[in-house]
Amino acid sequence: MKLSAVILDEPTSSFAAVLTQNAFYGAPIKLAREVLQEEQVRGVLVNTKIANVGAPGGYEDAKTLQRVLAQNLGAPENQFFVLSTGIIGWKLPVNDMVQELPKLVGGLGQGELIDLAKAIMTTDSYPKLRCVPLGDGQLCGVIKGAGMIEPNLATMIGLVFTDVSISRDELREALSKAAQESFNLISVDGDQSTSDAVLAFSSNKKPPVSSSEFRERLTQLCQQLAEDVVRNGEGAAHVLEVRVRGAPSEAVARATARQIINSPLVKTAIYGNDPNVGRILAAAGSRLGQILPQIDLSGLQLSIGDHLVYGEGRFQLNTQLEKLLSDYLVGQSMPEVRDFPQHERNVTVELNLNQGQAQARLLGNDLSHEYIKINADYRS
Amino acid sequence: MKLSAVILDEPTSSFAAVLTQNAFYGAPIKLAREVLQEEQVRGVLVNTKIANVGAPGGYEDAKTLQRVLAQNLGAPENQFFVLSTGIIGWKLPVNDMVQELPKLVGGLGQGELIDLAKAIMTTDSYPKLRCVPLGDGQLCGVIKGAGMIEPNLATMIGLVFTDVSISRDELREALSKAAQESFNLISVDGDQSTSDAVLAFSSNKKPPVSSSEFRERLTQLCQQLAEDVVRNGEGAAHVLEVRVRGAPSEAVARATARQIINSPLVKTAIYGNDPNVGRILAAAGSRLGQILPQIDLSGLQLSIGDHLVYGEGRFQLNTQLEKLLSDYLVGQSMPEVRDFPQHERNVTVELNLNQGQAQARLLGNDLSHEYIKINADYRS
Repeated sequence: MKLSAVILDEPTSSFAAVLTQNAFYGAPIKLAREVLQEEQVRGVLVNTKIANVGAPGGYEDAKTLQRVLAQNLGAPENQFFVLSTGIIGWKLPVNDMVQELPKLVGGLGQGELIDLAKAIMTTDSYPKLRCVPLGDGQLCGVIKGAGMIEPNLATMIGLVFTDVSISRDELREALSKAAQESFNLISVDGDQSTSDAVLAFSSNKKPPVSSSEFRERLTQLCQQLAEDVVRNGEGAAHVLEVRVRGAPSEAVARATARQIINSPLVKTAIYGNDPNVGRILAAAGSRLGQILPQIDLSGLQLSIGDHLVYGEGRFQLNTQLEKLLSDYLVGQSMPEVRDFPQHERNVTVELNLNQGQAQARLLGNDLSHEYIKINADYRS
Repeated sequence: MKLSAVILDEPTSSFAAVLTQNAFYGAPIKLAREVLQEEQVRGVLVNTKIANVGAPGGYEDAKTLQRVLAQNLGAPENQFFVLSTGIIGWKLPVNDMVQELPKLVGGLGQGELIDLAKAIMTTDSYPKLRCVPLGDGQLCGVIKGAGMIEPNLATMIGLVFTDVSISRDELREALSKAAQESFNLISVDGDQSTSDAVLAFSSNKKPPVSSSEFRERLTQLCQQLAEDVVRNGEGAAHVLEVRVRGAPSEAVARATARQIINSPLVKTAIYGNDPNVGRILAAAGSRLGQILPQIDLSGLQLSIGDHLVYGEGRFQLNTQLEKLLSDYLVGQSMPEVRDFPQHERNVTVELNLNQGQAQARLLGNDLSHEYIKINADYRS
């Protein structure tokens, strides 16, 4: 089990969180909801390996860690988040963890964010750290996980820091909107974890920027972090980008894109570099048939890469096009070595319903032998 | 391509169909909707290999087959269903098929239903035929597919025959209700095919039974056929039975069960005989968090086989129980040889929400290497 702590130089009242909406949430999420009510916070403790979800005495364990960390720092005890990621159902070795805390606190220094990004890694193949400039300061974030990488479902922990001044309310609203446009648009297994959490903090040391600029930059940062998570998917051989356009509403566009990106049949075909494009329309039609049974699909267009494969009421397939599509899928496969600098290969699927103006874009992965291997035998 | 025909001895007005609700449905489904408006029908033509969905001139091809079959039999042309199952997007070799029809019609005799069950098989490992007694007659059905078996999405074609008299309206209502309680309660990939179709016919040669008896028996038959489809899942190493009880409504029970049974993380854990029970509650909580965010899960109970694994607000796990669960999963694995007589091994997962009286039961499969292998490279 790896234990990491981030301690802010000074307490701040500008902090925010987006937490899992899973109804079966873990003790760290329950505690985080309480911490969100505090006037100020000082920091975060993060452990890997055990998620502290549904375990006997889990909430008390999280409180114990919070209290002992505070005592070691001489700070009020309620000002710390305690996040856990790992296996659901197991109990934290809280006594061992408590004994490690003095050493952890004693070793705290002016560490670089990259060290934090490394410390919270589990099966990630590289640390994920992004920064964007903002006014006189900057916004930086680290993230661990997710999905294909982290088969334990405790998929994602993100920590965002800025020195640009912002009020608590504005930061919370900005983070909530940024998550909608980033973390909520990646899909890996279709399940939301019991422990997902993204926290944001400002030291308020630099002058503020406009609300809209802050939001735009934070969204950009979160999108970069979310994309890193998808690209680092262990077991994934392709990143899949699904765009649905021409939908009657954004909800319809998102639901349709989600059905495509979560379809095991689509995911396995992409994995096999097999342009079995019928599966994409079957998945879309499956969802649309549920939510809009009367939708007119006569104007439907489907493109893969830059190739139109369905239009004018029929597939535009021929031997030559199938060969081009197959070559395209091979060409968009992940590079063998997963490291920075990041590759930018995507399999793009674009579906135009021609039934409105709304659109959505989702990122996901294919479904591979490696995924089965990791997930069929994760705990042993 | 295999071509089969079922020709009734005499036309009947007692016929019914349940057809896919996929918005991107195939030409055979469009034609079937028209045939349902006819006064009488004479039979069904079924081909495997190509599903006739989204192909240029697909509807005209289906009409051609319908017309030529009728001409060969000297019957009115609109009285035949034409069903296709197989790859989406490809065009039927309609000229070749037309030339085969005279031979097919000439060879029609008093075939056994088991021959039909064999003829419509694709990657099924054995023919699926079930009969139940009913009044002075009987109800029999054959089925092909699905899901894990039929990666082409054209997952299921079922044909049900009876000699017990029943009106068209009653048969249609009975089939619709039976499908709700059978075919709609199995889940394989989470997508509904573009070609799913179950047809029912009565020769009206035997005396009628009560409406309720007919419905009950038809539901029983359809449940047997649906279960056969799940048990024949190629690539599947376990049949998974998920029961959700104590739900505030049947819709909630079904949605929760479906989330569990479609979760790749649950499916891969079961495949690996790994009792990673946290994933089951995480999947359930993921769905419940969306549809009932305020639900109280303090009375939640989860059992696997006969073992209680979650109750009184926490997991009841220990080393001994984990070993028992793992042994249970190994013991419920599919037998090596897939043939009749059928095995009856199920991994049963029972979730009691203790928040009401409603319940649901779904059947599905695990997610295996074999599934990836079949589906990543199906067409080549």
